[in-house]
Amino acid sequence: MSSSPTLKFISEPRTIAIVGCPFSGGQGRLGVDEGPIHMVNAGLVQQLKGLGWEVEFDGHHQFEDISAQSDPPIGKLKNPRLVSKVTEAVATVVGGHAKKGHLPLTIGGDHSLAMGTVAGTLSKYPDACVIWVDAHADINTPETTESGNIHGMPVAFLASLTNSSSLGATAVGETQPFAWLDNVHLPPSRIAYIGLRDVDAGEKAILREHNIAAYSMHEVDRYGIGKVVEMAIDRVNPGRRAPIHLSFDVDALDPTVAPSTGTPVRGGLTFREGHYICERLFETGLVVAVDLMEVNPSLEDEESVQQTVAVGCSLVRAALGETLL
Amino acid sequence: MSSSPTLKFISEPRTIAIVGCPFSGGQGRLGVDEGPIHMVNAGLVQQLKGLGWEVEFDGHHQFEDISAQSDPPIGKLKNPRLVSKVTEAVATVVGGHAKKGHLPLTIGGDHSLAMGTVAGTLSKYPDACVIWVDAHADINTPETTESGNIHGMPVAFLASLTNSSSLGATAVGETQPFAWLDNVHLPPSRIAYIGLRDVDAGEKAILREHNIAAYSMHEVDRYGIGKVVEMAIDRVNPGRRAPIHLSFDVDALDPTVAPSTGTPVRGGLTFREGHYICERLFETGLVVAVDLMEVNPSLEDEESVQQTVAVGCSLVRAALGETLL
Amino acid sequence: MSSSPTLKFISEPRTIAIVGCPFSGGQGRLGVDEGPIHMVNAGLVQQLKGLGWEVEFDGHHQFEDISAQSDPPIGKLKNPRLVSKVTEAVATVVGGHAKKGHLPLTIGGDHSLAMGTVAGTLSKYPDACVIWVDAHADINTPETTESGNIHGMPVAFLASLTNSSSLGATAVGETQPFAWLDNVHLPPSRIAYIGLRDVDAGEKAILREHNIAAYSMHEVDRYGIGKVVEMAIDRVNPGRRAPIHLSFDVDALDPTVAPSTGTPVRGGLTFREGHYICERLFETGLVVAVDLMEVNPSLEDEESVQQTVAVGCSLVRAALGETLL
Ligand SMILES: [Mn+2]
Ligand SMILES: [Mn+2]
Ligand SMILES: [Mn+2]
Ligand SMILES: [Mn+2]
Ligand SMILES: [Mn+2]
Ligand SMILES: [Mn+2]
Repeated sequence: MSSSPTLKFISEPRTIAIVGCPFSGGQGRLGVDEGPIHMVNAGLVQQLKGLGWEVEFDGHHQFEDISAQSDPPIGKLKNPRLVSKVTEAVATVVGGHAKKGHLPLTIGGDHSLAMGTVAGTLSKYPDACVIWVDAHADINTPETTESGNIHGMPVAFLASLTNSSSLGATAVGETQPFAWLDNVHLPPSRIAYIGLRDVDAGEKAILREHNIAAYSMHEVDRYGIGKVVEMAIDRVNPGRRAPIHLSFDVDALDPTVAPSTGTPVRGGLTFREGHYICERLFETGLVVAVDLMEVNPSLEDEESVQQTVAVGCSLVRAALGETLL
Repeated sequence: MSSSPTLKFISEPRTIAIVGCPFSGGQGRLGVDEGPIHMVNAGLVQQLKGLGWEVEFDGHHQFEDISAQSDPPIGKLKNPRLVSKVTEAVATVVGGHAKKGHLPLTIGGDHSLAMGTVAGTLSKYPDACVIWVDAHADINTPETTESGNIHGMPVAFLASLTNSSSLGATAVGETQPFAWLDNVHLPPSRIAYIGLRDVDAGEKAILREHNIAAYSMHEVDRYGIGKVVEMAIDRVNPGRRAPIHLSFDVDALDPTVAPSTGTPVRGGLTFREGHYICERLFETGLVVAVDLMEVNPSLEDEESVQQTVAVGCSLVRAALGETLL
Repeated sequence: MSSSPTLKFISEPRTIAIVGCPFSGGQGRLGVDEGPIHMVNAGLVQQLKGLGWEVEFDGHHQFEDISAQSDPPIGKLKNPRLVSKVTEAVATVVGGHAKKGHLPLTIGGDHSLAMGTVAGTLSKYPDACVIWVDAHADINTPETTESGNIHGMPVAFLASLTNSSSLGATAVGETQPFAWLDNVHLPPSRIAYIGLRDVDAGEKAILREHNIAAYSMHEVDRYGIGKVVEMAIDRVNPGRRAPIHLSFDVDALDPTVAPSTGTPVRGGLTFREGHYICERLFETGLVVAVDLMEVNPSLEDEESVQQTVAVGCSLVRAALGETLL
């Protein structure tokens, strides 16, 4: 039976800053930019207040005025200038909240946004680690990507497996997209994945080469989710003193649980396993930022949308203190 | 591979006494009183005989002639006089069967009936412990209850967390409802829950204050159902010598498994986990009484009803000796 | 994170020989003979090549010209002459592939065919053990069978729990069916079951008498699939040096996962548990033969068929080297 843990890095009164990121430029499917609106409309702010948090929410229109006048692909990368500008702005906003001792909760939108959220976290907590819950590793580089969708690459950028100078030629005098990320570095030893089950061959090679902690569904079956979460924390956060950034892609859940997402993959986390991860991380008292990404209310039927939005809200509550007992 | 265990407290020839409790007065939804009839009609008596038991069944009409002429609420409590009279009668009947060395199997009906069944068990086995499998803790007191439905309170009465004198004023000369329970006492150290996931704030406080063994779905995910059952038994029955009363609320199962019940809650036990609990408890040889509660054949469509009734029968068989091997 | 293991018994270049067995004579339902065609049409050959194997496939019409002119029951056994002739032919073909250092992948068809596949494996690897993944034990003898369907008996024949002389009278001068199996012997100590949940009383007695390693769904729930697979391997293959024959009956999976099969049973392996078993066995580097049996494309609706065929292909890929990481 848990009572609410001491939060090591968050100031009193405990404050959540919701960062709504209606952005879909990191991938090819419309509608994922509607995810944040649906989750807030489902009552998320009140639910979080009910858990004893102060909640700041600046509205849905952040980042919407950012545009890139002309944004042709660079190499295979689609929308590179737009994604770079939006994620840089997100980094500034998230970092600002973190510096005030608040806990930024970023609701996407596509997972390319995590370049911004994790960079923001690192600006305040340089020693933070990341638990990345996802069916996908999102660690393609501009060289290994097949689709060119940047939501499949954020970890590669964050871990400095690629940088802006490798992207290829841009117009004379143009600032290279993602140059702002060149000084951000999340060591591969501080990333742990849970839920992987659709990883490209190039990504598998990267995970091995950098010895990244990756707990696929095979490990979840082998050890059980309880043990996997402990192993993941211990790998990236030995001693359990460092801040934890949780980046949760809703497609980590099985499609029967969260159908309305752009790249669903069979054999995923159950409803309970997804919540367990969130509950257990919150219990550590070390969580400093939470992302909930890839809810896409334009996919599947209305019932599926409601189900996925409800699960998204429920995961967020679990990651921010809701307990069964 | 298990062969049938020695049953430490049950006389030969092994005899089950089915107590059908068509009662819905402890909650607000019609139809749960139809549960026992449906389970017996589904062939439960023959199924239990097939497991090598003698089976006594006195028919469906027990307790139906009990009524309370006038039964206005006392405080928030709804139907207090009727629930008190029925559960007292159930206690007498269950206790009578237990005293003959038979194993009473009580089929509800709503879970307020467990005030009767557990009291009956304790009349024969004062040192019995209770494994309470449920989405809910059913441990509200007359003070903490919001709904006033007594099926949310039986554990509070059994554990003497409340008593009849605290209920509030009744008519002059009227016997106080639940006075018959004032001498019944199940120590909080002998109650273990499995499957909790919808517990009121007041109940959470009670569970903590009395240090009650409560294994929610969080613990089921963390440790696996195999380990949780061992932990639950060891907490309430150290040495594994005392009698066990199993009180199984079908809403402990996930609603996809047992949809026809009054207060379904997402994220519940799987079909297999529910059966595992029953099988494992029977294996101990210590089970002296079984309740199967809250099957409500008036809820959901016909297929859901058949499914829920079939699962109810199957759980009972597992608790009474059916094994896979 | 796994890289492809060394395969201890398979020659380079790694070669799979697909043995398509469109045969339904070991049971009573039409259509299971269509299973292999559907799985090959779903792209299985290309999928296996994609895993780095050479793939031989001789087409669908093997064994179809075998017939028994007159095949009345012997005792309760249905189609004994036909089943004997087909399984003998399968044994010869599978054994031939094994002797070349290839890995025979047999796609049924009903599970009586495993008399042939396991006999073929033993002809090359006399010390092989068998992991039999199934809802059923398939270990009835001609004496214990109720249905007379031989797909419920292959393990009894392989383990020499019965032999051709016990079958009963045949015509004067007729070769006794299954006489070819009398010299085949798989010791009961080298069989491990995973997934059992519908075992006849006579079979339970046999399993106990011969102390056969049997991990039912009860054990899967109790220990988790990760531990169960290790226990199963260690029981039948101590030291982990002997060849492993994997015989996977698709009905081991829950009917919600693999609906199109002749004898579905509730409470089965999840999608993930089924794949975990296959992945883990391949990781040992000891697998020398794989059977995938009882996919029946004539049962249930078109969506269920596609789902079952897809799962069948996916299980085979997992058993032959596909990994999540
Ligand atoms: Mn993803
Ligand atoms: Mn992602
Ligand atoms: Mn309940
Ligand atoms: Mn209850
Ligand atoms: Mn089977
Ligand atoms: Mn079989």
